Amino acid sequence: MHVLIIGAAGMVGRKLLDRIAHEDGVLGGEVTRLTLVDVVEPTAPGPLDAITRSLALDLSDAGAAAQLIAERPDIIFHLAAIVSGEAEADFEKGYRVNLDGTRALFDAIRAEGLKEPYRPRVIFASSVAVFGAPFPEKIGDEFFTTPLTSYGTQKAIAELLLADYSRRGIFDGIGIRLPTICVRPGKPNKAASGFFSNILREPLAGQEAVLPVEEDVLHWFASPRSAAGFFVHAATLDLEKVGLRRNLTMPGLSATVRDEIAALERVAGAKAVRLIRREPDETIRRIVAGWPRDFDARRAAELGFKAETRFDDIIRAHIEDELGGKI
Amino acid sequence: MHVLIIGAAGMVGRKLLDRIAHEDGVLGGEVTRLTLVDVVEPTAPGPLDAITRSLALDLSDAGAAAQLIAERPDIIFHLAAIVSGEAEADFEKGYRVNLDGTRALFDAIRAEGLKEPYRPRVIFASSVAVFGAPFPEKIGDEFFTTPLTSYGTQKAIAELLLADYSRRGIFDGIGIRLPTICVRPGKPNKAASGFFSNILREPLAGQEAVLPVEEDVLHWFASPRSAAGFFVHAATLDLEKVGLRRNLTMPGLSATVRDEIAALERVAGAKAVRLIRREPDETIRRIVAGWPRDFDARRAAELGFKAETRFDDIIRAHIEDELGGKI
Repeated sequence: MHVLIIGAAGMVGRKLLDRIAHEDGVLGGEVTRLTLVDVVEPTAPGPLDAITRSLALDLSDAGAAAQLIAERPDIIFHLAAIVSGEAEADFEKGYRVNLDGTRALFDAIRAEGLKEPYRPRVIFASSVAVFGAPFPEKIGDEFFTTPLTSYGTQKAIAELLLADYSRRGIFDGIGIRLPTICVRPGKPNKAASGFFSNILREPLAGQEAVLPVEEDVLHWFASPRSAAGFFVHAATLDLEKVGLRRNLTMPGLSATVRDEIAALERVAGAKAVRLIRREPDETIRRIVAGWPRDFDARRAAELGFKAETRFDDIIRAHIEDELGGKI
Repeated sequence: MHVLIIGAAGMVGRKLLDRIAHEDGVLGGEVTRLTLVDVVEPTAPGPLDAITRSLALDLSDAGAAAQLIAERPDIIFHLAAIVSGEAEADFEKGYRVNLDGTRALFDAIRAEGLKEPYRPRVIFASSVAVFGAPFPEKIGDEFFTTPLTSYGTQKAIAELLLADYSRRGIFDGIGIRLPTICVRPGKPNKAASGFFSNILREPLAGQEAVLPVEEDVLHWFASPRSAAGFFVHAATLDLEKVGLRRNLTMPGLSATVRDEIAALERVAGAKAVRLIRREPDETIRRIVAGWPRDFDARRAAELGFKAETRFDDIIRAHIEDELGGKI
């Protein structure tokens, strides 16, 4: 089985690679060939070295998608995107990469299939940014997509293309709308959502972290471990059961910042909590106010997608996966 | 005021032109210049001749959109599309015209605005084909768009672009999701929805018509007169009131074929009804089964969009507008 991962250098891509490296048959068969793509050359975990080819390329460059698809991969994970803030700041780059790049991939698959029958599975990383406020208390599976960012617009468009191309039999697509991933490993970053992870990750490492919003802010979370699980599950799921509505809001955990902090205290003690410094930021507060808070992601749950149900588990997953089980 | 109508040779375009020709100030100011575009050269009603320039061009051709936008029209009606059946049969043509053509128009407006501030009003003809079965009994304003045709997909994508470009201040856009237009003037055509009009228009003209489905088929209608009214209203509506959710399901009338026939009998007598010949067609029956039946189009109604509430009025509008008031 030849697996192509576009956006393999990103956090979710790396988590997914770890699963492929350490769990035989996790994608439903033996992975005999792996192609990893990102704008910087991605690296494979050691056990996958021998079967991996890594490429630095941009999907929106002329011919890039066709070059990847000419190898006729069986499973394609499309995780690559210009993130929300950058897509908002750079209109043309966001549309070029997130929309044109994705469409180039889909059209390359179609062109390959016109030469000789070809119908790979395509697993696309979408986002709850396809939704825009005002929201109902819980966003159901049939709520409309009225994004309030260009990034969300590009994801929503890609979802529509994915569903139509799948309906036409061009490929077997499934769109995975990710919750906010928490605890994000790595350094604090400037994403407006960064603090949700920072206030856990930094104290767990004995470092101070800044909380820019009130503790009653409610948001929608899943761990990096769950995110990798969503993609693995999507790779083997019977798509007949999914039907024609191919884009699914993933299950997650709706929690307040207060819930996060309480979980941190239970897992790591009051000392960790004392490392959180309150520093209200009106801009971040306003951005976060427009974000989805809670979902009723029933379809995905019925289809077997799983996420944490308690914040303690999200923190424990971080300690196990990133800190060698110790704090 | 310079008005550009793209798709001006179509039925809705002609109805809109009649309104502009015969109602001073219907678009909120004096129309001093009119540019009409279609793939065949459109014609203006007599009174508009002196201010009209007609062009035969395809919006998806290189440079076509820029050429139109270089003239900086104040109001742009974008009514042009490859229809549902053709977009389904010809994948590339549908995406090229309905998606790339629309995006070329939107991007040409953006490019013009980067030269010198420019923010026209853009009124886009969308369709209830953005929805796909299964449906709730009434489709509300927040129901999700999961089209089951490439045409519906292209319209749903254009809606997302329109909302994002409007949010960014590139233009002031509004998307008008049209019900099935009935009674369509002209000859019977092969559209699967044609019979809804045929069974009224033909008997009213003393001709036989074929009914391929059961009488309990429920569907969503507005007259050509209402359709023109939607676009006229959209041209002058205060978009602040619409907010960021710029695509609106238009009001309409939910009626069964039985309701249509009963209205025909009330307006034109039993003789007309006897001209309807039952000829069940399994293919058409199946296609129609996937179509929306009823809507709760509350937002558009609150914003002042109006349609018929009784089928008799739909038939009378046809008699007045197409048959000189006589049958």
